[in-house]
Amino acid sequence: MYRTGPIEKYVADAAAGIPAPGGGSVSALAGALGAAMAAMAANFTVGKKKFAGVEPQVRAILDKCSAGAQRLTELMDADVAAYATVSQAYGLPKDTDEHKKARTAAIQDALKVALAEPLATFRLCRELVELLDELVEIANPNLVSDVGVAAILLEAALRGAKLNVEINLAYLKDAAFVAEKRDEIDAAAFQAAELAASVVERVYKKIGWPPA
Amino acid sequence: MYRTGPIEKYVADAAAGIPAPGGGSVSALAGALGAAMAAMAANFTVGKKKFAGVEPQVRAILDKCSAGAQRLTELMDADVAAYATVSQAYGLPKDTDEHKKARTAAIQDALKVALAEPLATFRLCRELVELLDELVEIANPNLVSDVGVAAILLEAALRGAKLNVEINLAYLKDAAFVAEKRDEIDAAAFQAAELAASVVERVYKKIGWPPA
Repeated sequence: MYRTGPIEKYVADAAAGIPAPGGGSVSALAGALGAAMAAMAANFTVGKKKFAGVEPQVRAILDKCSAGAQRLTELMDADVAAYATVSQAYGLPKDTDEHKKARTAAIQDALKVALAEPLATFRLCRELVELLDELVEIANPNLVSDVGVAAILLEAALRGAKLNVEINLAYLKDAAFVAEKRDEIDAAAFQAAELAASVVERVYKKIGWPPA
Repeated sequence: MYRTGPIEKYVADAAAGIPAPGGGSVSALAGALGAAMAAMAANFTVGKKKFAGVEPQVRAILDKCSAGAQRLTELMDADVAAYATVSQAYGLPKDTDEHKKARTAAIQDALKVALAEPLATFRLCRELVELLDELVEIANPNLVSDVGVAAILLEAALRGAKLNVEINLAYLKDAAFVAEKRDEIDAAAFQAAELAASVVERVYKKIGWPPA
């Protein structure tokens, strides 16, 4: 499990000439960093007299972002494990027609397993981006730039995860499955991008940048 | 130093109600993840007969991305240290006019120290994004989605770092310094966004997604 190990080791292994951690795993970690920034902004808001009026809303957002950050670090590891399934399938023998057929079927199954992790990352990052729409308005204004970084990183994580779903969809022959997943992620990615852009725009307004 | 410690601990501290790690630090780590993906794609290209024709170019990119990933994990830690300088300045006494004046001067100095780290992250991510323009064309095509994730994360890291430079610029009174930095980052961020978008577009063309 990478999440209990040193950051340096994870970054070095991601950079190395080994198949995993790859794009799906690092996207999940980027999402965890985004979720952590949202949780940090919420943590500096709850329990303060000045923000007592929004305490229940901020506490609900805090709980979701904290849980989301933890879940995304788990997905960072789960993606590495799922990749092994694909590698195994590609490693199956292809010397006879029967072997070839079995290998093709195993690869198709493995691609569905492999895309489950980035799809989970994608869905979770999308849910978390939606929380920022409210958080940017009610969080302690001293932390508003951290809400902005949360929006930027969660949206990037979502786009990275999307690409890793799609690279698997591109090889899948189950047309109905592919069409369903494609429709889901296209619509959700578009909405998340609009929302993230709106959050960042509001952050800039709140910090008064650029100056008039 | 967070980089030699567990990922879980870093994410938990970023999410916690403590001032650092904050947006500048997590942006640097996101950049390190992007640089690592570019290095990974380069690592799966060098030393292979099939790609011998581009070996020197890919090796040069590999060296820069590996060094960049390591440097960005250092900036992740450096940003946490720089934040302490700002906190200290804000903590200075403000009971007399003389103290107030000294405190204001110390804060102004600390803001310049604090923005140096995200500015270094910004500049480095920008240099790394530029390498992807070539890498996406010559890297092992099996790794092209990782080059796409590199573009997405490096550009997000750059935007996060930019916001953390700007939040410091917004409080700085040295107008010439502010204008100079603002001009630099505005121009560079625009170019990097265009380039990252072009890299991602080419990645999608290469993987043949969306299907016709």
